[in-house]
Amino acid sequence: MKGIKTEYIYRERNGVIAQVEDQIAIEEPLEMRILTDGIEKSISVTMRTPTNDAFLAAGFLFTEGIISNQKEIKNITSAENIVTVELASGTKVDVKKVERNFYTTSSCGVCGKSSIDSINTNSQFEISTDVHLIQKSILFGLQNILKEQQSLFSLTGGIHAAALFDFTGKLISLQEDVGRHNALDKLIGDAMLKDSLPLKQHLLLLSGRASFELIQKATMAGIPIIAAIGAPSSLAIELAKENGHTLIGFLKKKGFNIYCGYERIEN
Amino acid sequence: MKGIKTEYIYRERNGVIAQVEDQIAIEEPLEMRILTDGIEKSISVTMRTPTNDAFLAAGFLFTEGIISNQKEIKNITSAENIVTVELASGTKVDVKKVERNFYTTSSCGVCGKSSIDSINTNSQFEISTDVHLIQKSILFGLQNILKEQQSLFSLTGGIHAAALFDFTGKLISLQEDVGRHNALDKLIGDAMLKDSLPLKQHLLLLSGRASFELIQKATMAGIPIIAAIGAPSSLAIELAKENGHTLIGFLKKKGFNIYCGYERIEN
Repeated sequence: MKGIKTEYIYRERNGVIAQVEDQIAIEEPLEMRILTDGIEKSISVTMRTPTNDAFLAAGFLFTEGIISNQKEIKNITSAENIVTVELASGTKVDVKKVERNFYTTSSCGVCGKSSIDSINTNSQFEISTDVHLIQKSILFGLQNILKEQQSLFSLTGGIHAAALFDFTGKLISLQEDVGRHNALDKLIGDAMLKDSLPLKQHLLLLSGRASFELIQKATMAGIPIIAAIGAPSSLAIELAKENGHTLIGFLKKKGFNIYCGYERIEN
Repeated sequence: MKGIKTEYIYRERNGVIAQVEDQIAIEEPLEMRILTDGIEKSISVTMRTPTNDAFLAAGFLFTEGIISNQKEIKNITSAENIVTVELASGTKVDVKKVERNFYTTSSCGVCGKSSIDSINTNSQFEISTDVHLIQKSILFGLQNILKEQQSLFSLTGGIHAAALFDFTGKLISLQEDVGRHNALDKLIGDAMLKDSLPLKQHLLLLSGRASFELIQKATMAGIPIIAAIGAPSSLAIELAKENGHTLIGFLKKKGFNIYCGYERIEN
């Protein structure tokens, strides 16, 4: 099925860790281009699941106010993570809007591979290969600690958290934000200002899903173990593998999945 | 407490809708600037919860590879949704990285108010004030329909959905993506390509939380009723009120919250 891929992962259930086949949501960058009277212009790079790219491009152009109806679109073609919207001849595009709406998130390139190369070049820290075995009982307890300490979440039910633990399960710091990338930037910024980087004896707990962008930030801070309450994306797993992280997902009070870096977890 | 605000909302529980006080996570734009040897440069606008802006700015600059340690920061000051990081004299900033990392998401300005003005100017559709009462029983059934139809989610457990219903609760279309804004762009793009806009007899169901950006897109498509399984942000509520939407949050099989546009819901 489009939009998902199969991975072989390790799953902890009822005290046993076993290899299982799992389905992962695909996250890949898409470059959107518009073609007007023979002139092609790149207007956005966004991380997305590769289904219905034509709908995505059409919807993005419309909701950003760049085009106003379907008559302004002559044709949409897509190939290899690039979608090109050919506008009807004479369609006026507000150049300022295009400029304003151009954004790349977090140094992502047009293909996942170039992104991964780029982040590897950028990071000043290697992920430590010293193996400190994390006990399963510590992992099982993290979600409760997060819940107790997440003051904005407990009041609103609608905010992400990033929390830093040491390998004994002691909470070091916690930050909350409506944007999960912001919560993590706050956490890493705090550590950097205290001159505590790299965070090589630490575990990062994410309250939601793990995307490419979050793994990238953890790499920059040198954090070896990343555990998410939610699912990781395909590109998050790929980057975590390449950079030597341990990546855990669907962390519950009983049970979790290990996507890579199995050797750091007690069996 | 910082980062949250109180709203008076309507809550459905056990067949009764009553006004209650609720706590909402604040979402506001933050402009980040760097000041190097007397020259100030705006580098990013991001939607965030206003706590620890200095940590956020420091972490963002570090994780994006713009600065490499705390010694490169001389001072951080913040005022009214602008945070300025003064770099130590002589700190070299990679201008290309700054350019690459500058992004504004979805026409958000530096203050929520200017964003709201901007979207109101842009949208070609008014939200219809014809009141079609939605029955509570229809709302209660939406989550089950979403679950049954969300094929990528059921396989991966890690993907967002946006679904369009008519006022009788009939599913019109559904899109999935790792990015919730992408799922909604796919849905609106599909409708636009079919020349079905504005979606004035429709309800939009969001599988997660409702942020400013999602309400903005719903306004562009003319959708009167927005229901989220998760929480709305403060700016989402503000924009929904201003544009005349009905906004429902924490939609469950029994119970929901109404943040505005109460008149469209059966009591």
